[in-house]
Amino acid sequence: MTDVSGHPVTGLDEVVHQRVRLGILAITHEAKRVEFGYLRTQLDLTAGNLSKHLSVLEAAGLIDIEKGYEGKRGRTWITLTADGDAALAAEISRLKMLIARVETA
Amino acid sequence: MTDVSGHPVTGLDEVVHQRVRLGILAITHEAKRVEFGYLRTQLDLTAGNLSKHLSVLEAAGLIDIEKGYEGKRGRTWITLTADGDAALAAEISRLKMLIARVETA
Repeated sequence: MTDVSGHPVTGLDEVVHQRVRLGILAITHEAKRVEFGYLRTQLDLTAGNLSKHLSVLEAAGLIDIEKGYEGKRGRTWITLTADGDAALAAEISRLKMLIARVETA
Repeated sequence: MTDVSGHPVTGLDEVVHQRVRLGILAITHEAKRVEFGYLRTQLDLTAGNLSKHLSVLEAAGLIDIEKGYEGKRGRTWITLTADGDAALAAEISRLKMLIARVETA
C-alpha cells in the first residue's frame, strides 16, 4: 500500500472547500467585486442559501459585504479580503497536490 | 464584469466534492483496495464519521464495501467501483477547469 501520510485532503479547509463557498470565492476573485443577485444566478441558489454561505465566509474574515443603492434599488456587494485571497490560493495549491497524487496513482 | 456562465463549481457533485469523501475516493484510487482503519488514520476521523461518509458513497454506487477477516480480526475493505473511478475523474476534470479560471483571472 502506498504511503499517503499527510494526504492533501487533510489540509483542505471546509470553510473554503465547500462547493458553494468555493464558487463564491472563485467568482468574486474573477470579478473583483460582485453583486448578490449575480452570484445567486451564477451559482443557481436561493437567496437564503446564498446568504447563509456568505455569512460563513464573512464570519471567517474572507469576504467583505457592503450594502448600498444602485438608483433606488438596494444592492449588496461582495469583495474578497486579503485573507480571502490567501485562503483561495491555499485551496488551489492543495487541490493541485491532490490532483497530482490522483493522476500519478 | 466577466461572464462566468456555467461556472465550473456548478458542475461539482457534492457527493464527491465533500472533503472527507474526496479523500476516501482519492486514497482508495491510489491504494486500489484499502482497509477501514487505514482510511480512518489517514483522514484523521472517528470511526462513526468515516462510516457515515462510506455509507453515502456506497449508496451512490461509488464504492464497494467488503467485510472479512484477517486472522481472527474483523476487517472492512473498500474498493472503488467503475462509477467511483469515473466520478473521481469527473471531479478532477472540473477542479482543473476551476483552477484554470481562478489562475487566469
